[in-house]
Order: sequence, then structure tokens, then C-alpha cells
Amino acid sequence: MNYKMIARMLGRVILIIGVSLLIPLFISIGGRDGIYLSFLIPSLSMLAIGVGMNFIKPKDNQMSIAAGFAIVALSWIALSLFGSLPFLISGGITEYMDCLFESVSGFTTTGATILQDVEALPRSLLFWRSFTHWIGGLGVLLFVIAILPKTGSGAMHIFRAEATGPQIGKLVSKLKVTARILYLIHIAFTMFETIALLICGLSFFDAINTALSTAGTGGFSVRNASIAAYDSLAVEMVVLVFMFLFSINYNLFFLILIGKAKQVFKSEEFRAYIVLLTVAILSMAINIISVYGSFWTALRYASFQALIASSTTGFMSADYTAWPAFSQGIMLLLMIIGSTAGSTGGGFKVSRFLILTKSFFKNSNSILRPRSVKTLKFDGKPLDAQVLDSVNGFFAAYIALIIGGTLLISINGYDFATNFSAAISCLSNVGPGLSQIGPTQNFSDFSIFSKLVMCFLMLAGRLEIFPILFIFYPRTWLKK
Amino acid sequence: MNYKMIARMLGRVILIIGVSLLIPLFISIGGRDGIYLSFLIPSLSMLAIGVGMNFIKPKDNQMSIAAGFAIVALSWIALSLFGSLPFLISGGITEYMDCLFESVSGFTTTGATILQDVEALPRSLLFWRSFTHWIGGLGVLLFVIAILPKTGSGAMHIFRAEATGPQIGKLVSKLKVTARILYLIHIAFTMFETIALLICGLSFFDAINTALSTAGTGGFSVRNASIAAYDSLAVEMVVLVFMFLFSINYNLFFLILIGKAKQVFKSEEFRAYIVLLTVAILSMAINIISVYGSFWTALRYASFQALIASSTTGFMSADYTAWPAFSQGIMLLLMIIGSTAGSTGGGFKVSRFLILTKSFFKNSNSILRPRSVKTLKFDGKPLDAQVLDSVNGFFAAYIALIIGGTLLISINGYDFATNFSAAISCLSNVGPGLSQIGPTQNFSDFSIFSKLVMCFLMLAGRLEIFPILFIFYPRTWLKK
Repeated sequence: MNYKMIARMLGRVILIIGVSLLIPLFISIGGRDGIYLSFLIPSLSMLAIGVGMNFIKPKDNQMSIAAGFAIVALSWIALSLFGSLPFLISGGITEYMDCLFESVSGFTTTGATILQDVEALPRSLLFWRSFTHWIGGLGVLLFVIAILPKTGSGAMHIFRAEATGPQIGKLVSKLKVTARILYLIHIAFTMFETIALLICGLSFFDAINTALSTAGTGGFSVRNASIAAYDSLAVEMVVLVFMFLFSINYNLFFLILIGKAKQVFKSEEFRAYIVLLTVAILSMAINIISVYGSFWTALRYASFQALIASSTTGFMSADYTAWPAFSQGIMLLLMIIGSTAGSTGGGFKVSRFLILTKSFFKNSNSILRPRSVKTLKFDGKPLDAQVLDSVNGFFAAYIALIIGGTLLISINGYDFATNFSAAISCLSNVGPGLSQIGPTQNFSDFSIFSKLVMCFLMLAGRLEIFPILFIFYPRTWLKK
Repeated sequence: MNYKMIARMLGRVILIIGVSLLIPLFISIGGRDGIYLSFLIPSLSMLAIGVGMNFIKPKDNQMSIAAGFAIVALSWIALSLFGSLPFLISGGITEYMDCLFESVSGFTTTGATILQDVEALPRSLLFWRSFTHWIGGLGVLLFVIAILPKTGSGAMHIFRAEATGPQIGKLVSKLKVTARILYLIHIAFTMFETIALLICGLSFFDAINTALSTAGTGGFSVRNASIAAYDSLAVEMVVLVFMFLFSINYNLFFLILIGKAKQVFKSEEFRAYIVLLTVAILSMAINIISVYGSFWTALRYASFQALIASSTTGFMSADYTAWPAFSQGIMLLLMIIGSTAGSTGGGFKVSRFLILTKSFFKNSNSILRPRSVKTLKFDGKPLDAQVLDSVNGFFAAYIALIIGGTLLISINGYDFATNFSAAISCLSNVGPGLSQIGPTQNFSDFSIFSKLVMCFLMLAGRLEIFPILFIFYPRTWLKK
């Protein structure tokens, strides 16, 4: 194991976060909210540590797959710890566990909060919350790869471990260029949403924060009532459209960029996602007509709520926990399936769901006709057996984490719907759940143990389980 | 497709059930409860149909795999329909949907009931309920294979489709002898339990019914308060031991019979089941000390309730829905995993759980070390790739049915815990669930649609999904 390589990459991540903290620092100084030290101290410490670790010179640039996973897991743990410092030092959040929870929830783009009154927080801290979503969504290591030189020959292993979805490939032959294109798309769409929200009449601060949060499919809002606070159909529609866009594979935007827009509709995952959303929205809308009186109002709220679940953003425009049980079930299902691979969204991912379904029908056919040999195809190409294996493994691990998470959280004594939806919501990086953790509620009342379990689930969900799992494998740390 | 072969086997199943109805007929006549026609009419009709269908002569004895599955699925649907007649004709149950529900719940050994007052029913009907458990547990087609001649060369396909577990093999080279040995074990253990319960002071009627119900891991009781009605530690212990025995692979009893008792403990599934039960019982017992005051009382109730869940019997000695959320979660988990393959119990089966776990660790190892080639072993032998495929497929289908079932049942408007646990309980053939369908409640208030969904889940669970699924495949019915 190339420990020096791991240390150097970790140092770079810490450096990047140290630099990122300068933005809320300037907001704090500009707004004279008196908590600038809460950003200055962590920022300077991280810059020092980051620069210091950069002096570690690995003998070679070789990086094993295991090292790639280890770098990603350790970086995200470091992110979570360092990112919690501004909350702690400023006193904006009093308990340390809550600071850590808010930090993990931010970077993993979950958006579950322990805050009861968000609006009481200084703007600099609110910005930091939204910014953690933005950088966590696409990935901090991807950002390192995009802007820092000499990331080594094994950077592809890092990319694979941090990106989402069952099959991860580069857009162009160079990984650095791929990373830059992805971040350019990310920045461009964030700017578009900010502008659109400004046009809708939001203040610049509300607009940029909402855009950063949507971009990461996070869900932190600068308002207690989330998107419902703006009470504006236009704002709702803008956020809805961007939640949809940010839950789409960025590769598809790249295809449009290079003039291959037609290929977008050939993506099986994209088409399945559209079908899934349409069916879910229509069935919920019909189910909640009794709540809202008219089909169109029902459709409006069903669409927005379906997208907070499927894109795993977790904003709020209506309290779906007051809806009939059937619609709540649909919400939970959308949360589990989540968004598409290669987006900033979380969840099991539509492509994995498709691969599992296809594999199921192939397997059941071969029970009836043992001698028939059919290959599994995805997007017109035969699916690699290793990809199928990893999807099956991921599915088992996902279900196991939901069950294990539910059991551990239930030690707290809440009702079953709360515990179960908390495990799903954290693992799928959504934010709100059902019952006691509905969109108008928060996570403050859980025990420290429950919050630790949820932090683990959020990290496991964002990194798609394996990197977090592998740091517990002795084999990962073997020399060879 | 050899339709004549399917018809002949169906006729035999109907014949067997027609004969079976003679037992409650005699009880009815002996007890002068005035409902003997409720057994006589269906019995005579079924004997006539059964004998009539036996005149259908297939051109050859060939039977495809698809035909095997079709025979099993159609037989069980026929069973459910004919088995509901005594409830309907006697007027013991007034709504037809409820008669069907009770029949399906009986044959599939679920034990979920729509009856609010079991004790008001005539003894002959109560016996019929228990008897459906007994014959459904091991399988009615297995009984046909055991006692009727000329079941054809494809009987093995039928055996495979009706028996439970991922790998189904014969005990001895002849299938008919295997079927007879299995039924002998079934009969012997049922007799042992009856005698043990008589010694505990139960009446003969209570003893035999409880034994028949335990043997099928069903859960119908002749008492409203189930096992709690006897208020006897001795009865509880006897039932507990037999719930455990009937949730064990019958192959292991055969090994003891032929003097290879040592091999029993070499069974990975058996060992895993013991570990699972021990961990579950101890953690529940510790969790419910606060409810019962002492550890030993807690242990007593935890053990019994753990076994009603893991063996999927669904008797009751305590209302676990009043327990802390953690223990209710453990109960639900035990229900999902269920018992061991080749037993009369339901659920996902411990062996499948083991195979999934092993496969997961093998897959995640091969992510870290793509070039390492390891074979998956089960019980010391390399696991067939087709078995692994079918376990993966079964897992996906199981989860899909739980999710789909929950959504469809939730149209009824109950709370999430009720809908979710109803889907699990029906699919795993347990009986009771959480919240509104706890062990002291019943299923009478659900809508007809919900009850139909549950009937489907119960049949899908008992036949391990594929036979029920395949009758919807056009491919199953193709000529070649």
C-alpha cells in the first residue's frame, strides 16, 4: 500500500477545503456577523496541514485500486470532521455531535438537519451549509483532479470510487479534462438556476444558496419553511426543473454539448427515469386529489414532492406526511431508487434498478429453459459480468444497511415508520422521511448513537458503500 | 406443452383434497354439528372431478420444466378455491372473499385469519383449518407423488417447484421413496407433538389441532388467544421445541435416521440458523426486560416470539406489538429471513441469506483484487452458478413483492407499519404483523382488493415466487 500517496491526496483535499472556507470567511467579514474567526482558524489550520502534507513525496505514482478506495473514504471522513468546525467554533450549533451531523449531512448532500431555526443562523454559516452540498454533490476529489497537477496514474481508481453508478467511464480520454468538463457543467447549471431564481424575485443570497443546494441535490435551505417559504409557483417550477436536471447523468449534458443530443433519448436509464417519474407523479396526484380539491393543485404538489424524493434533494413545498399512506409509500420508493448514475443525486440509482430487473427476467427465463443462452444487454451493449456482480452485491448491501440502520436507530424508541424512513433517507441522501422526521420536522431529538449511525449511513450512501466498507477490510491495508 | 399431463396431475390433487375432506366430514357427523353437508358436497364433487380427470390419458409421460411449474401453480390455485367451500357452504364465514382468504392462508401455512371469534366455529371447520396447514406445509403434490402411482418421469420438476429452498435434491435415488420418507417424518413429528401436548394436559382436540398447525408452521389455533389461552409454560415449551423442529430441513432428520447425525452440525444453514436465533432471542430479551421485570420472563417470551417469526408459524404467547421498537424490528427481520430450506417454514430462507452474504464478500473482494479468482463454496462444495443466479433473482423478486405489496395494501389507508408488515407477513407465510395486524388482531377489516393482494403474496411466498410468476409468462404455455 502506497501510504505516502494516500497522505498526499488527503493533504490536497484538506487544502481545497481550507481554500473553500475563505468564501464564507469573506461573507462573514462583509456582513460583520462577528464569527469570522470560525472560518479563519479552521481555514488557516487546513491550509497549513494541506501544504505540509504536500511535501510528502511518494516514491512512485503507482496507486492500487485499494488505495483509491482508501483515499476516497479517508478524504470524506476528513471533510466531515473539518467541515464541522465552523459550526462548533461559532457556537451556531452547540453540541459537537450535531455539528458533525450537519457537516456529514451537508457534504453527502443529504440535507437532513438538526437545526430547529435555520433563519437564526448568520449568513456566513448558512452559505457554508449550502456550499458543502455543492462540492459534495459532484465530489471533492473530482475537484482536486480537475484543478491540481500530478494526481498520479491511479487517479482513475479515485474517480471510480467517488463517482456514482454501476458503470463509470471517462467522457474524454484524459481524466483531468473529464473532471473539468463535469465541473464546468456543474458551475454553469448552478449559475443558470441562480439567475432564474433572481428573475423570480428572490434575493441574491436566497437565490445562490438555493441553487448551490439544488446543484448538490442536497436540500439545506436558508428558510425554515424551505421552498414553501417563497410561496411562489414560479420559484417552485424553477427549483423543480433544476432538481430534475441535477438528477440526470452529466454525461448526457456532455452529449448535447458535443452535438449528439439524439443519443440522450437512447439512454435506457434516462427513459426509465422519465417513465418512473411520470407514473409516480400521476398516481400520487390522483391519490391526493382529496387533500387539495383539484387535480392541478394535486399535480403541482405531487410533481415537486416526487422530485425531492427521486433527485434525493429533500426540499419541501408541502407536508407529504399528511398525505394518504399510498402516496407516502410512493415517496419512500422514489427515495430508495433515487436518481440516475453520474448525477449529483443519491439513492440506489435507476440504472442499477434496470440491470437488476433485466437480470431477473433473464434468470427466470433460464429456469424455464436451462439450455437457452442469452446475454444481458444494457444500452445496446452486452453487460460485463463484473458489473452485474457488483450490482447484485450493492443491492444486498443496500438492503442490509437499511435493515441494520433501522434496527440500530430503533433503539431510540421512535415508531417504525420514523426509524425505517430515517435509515432509507440517510442512506439515499434525501433528508426528510416519514412520521417524526417529515419535511416540517428535524433530526435534533435523536440520540448521539442514532446520529452516529445516520452519519455512517449518509457516508455509505454518498460513496456507494464499498469505499466505506473497505476501510474495515484488513486486506485493503495489506502491503501487496 | 403436455396439457393432458397437467390435467391428470390437477385431477389427482383434487382427488386427494376430496378424500381429505372426509376427515372433517366424520368429525361433523360424530359431533352432530349439523354442517356435514359443507364437507360432503365439496368432497363428492371433488372426488367426481378427480376421478373424471384421471381418465385423461396423456400420449406420453414427458413433462417439461414449464409444465412442472404450471402444475404446481394451478394445483395450489385449485386447492385454494376448493378448500374455501366448507367455510362458504357452512356459513361459518359469510363473505366469499374471507372464505378464500382463510383457505389460502391455511394451505400456504400463513395462519393469518379474518375470524374475530375462532371459538364460535364448529369443531369440524376448525379441524379443516388446521389440516390445510398440515398438508400445505410439506406440499400436496408431494403427497400425490408419495401415494399415487405413475406420476410420470417429470415428477422431479414438480418436486423442485413445490419444495422450498435454493437447492432441491432427493434423499434417495427414487423420488417416490423420498416423498414417502418426508411424509413419514412429518407424520411422526406431528404425533410426537400431539402426545407431548396431551401429557401437558390439553384435550385431544386442542392437542391434535395445535400439532397439525405447528407441523405446517401455520399458526391457526382453535383458541382466540392462541397458545396464550393455555397459560402453561409446559405447553409453550412443547410448541416452541416443535416450531423449531418443523423449521429445520427435513433432510437433516433423514441424516439422523440413517445414522449420520454428525453431519447435521456440518450443515452451514443449520449452524447459521442457530446463531441467528440465539442472537435475536438474547437481544430481544435484554430489550424487553423493562416490560417483564425479570430477565428470565423476558427470555421466555422472547424465545417463543422469535420462533413464531423465524419458523413463520405465527402463534402467540405475548403481544409483541407492545414491545419496544427495536424488538419489533428484530421480529420483522426474523419474519423476512424465515426458516431453513426444505422445512415446512416460509420466508426468504437462511440458506439464501447465507449464499447472498458469501457472494457479497466474494464480489467485494474481486472489486479490490479484480484478478483474484475464488469460487463460492456452500457446505464445502462449489456453488453452482445457476443456483447463485436464482438466489439473486429470488432476492430481487422478494424485495419487489414486499414493496409492491406494501403499496397496493396501503391504498386501504392503514398506517405504514401495518401495510409493510402485512406484505412481509403474507409473503413470508407468518400470519401476524405489526401495528393493526398484531397477534391479538385479525385481517377482517381489510378491503377485498387488499385481501386479494395478500392471497397473491401468500401463494407467491409458499411456492417461492417462480411457479406463480411463470403462469403469467406466455412462454410457459408455448407448445415447445
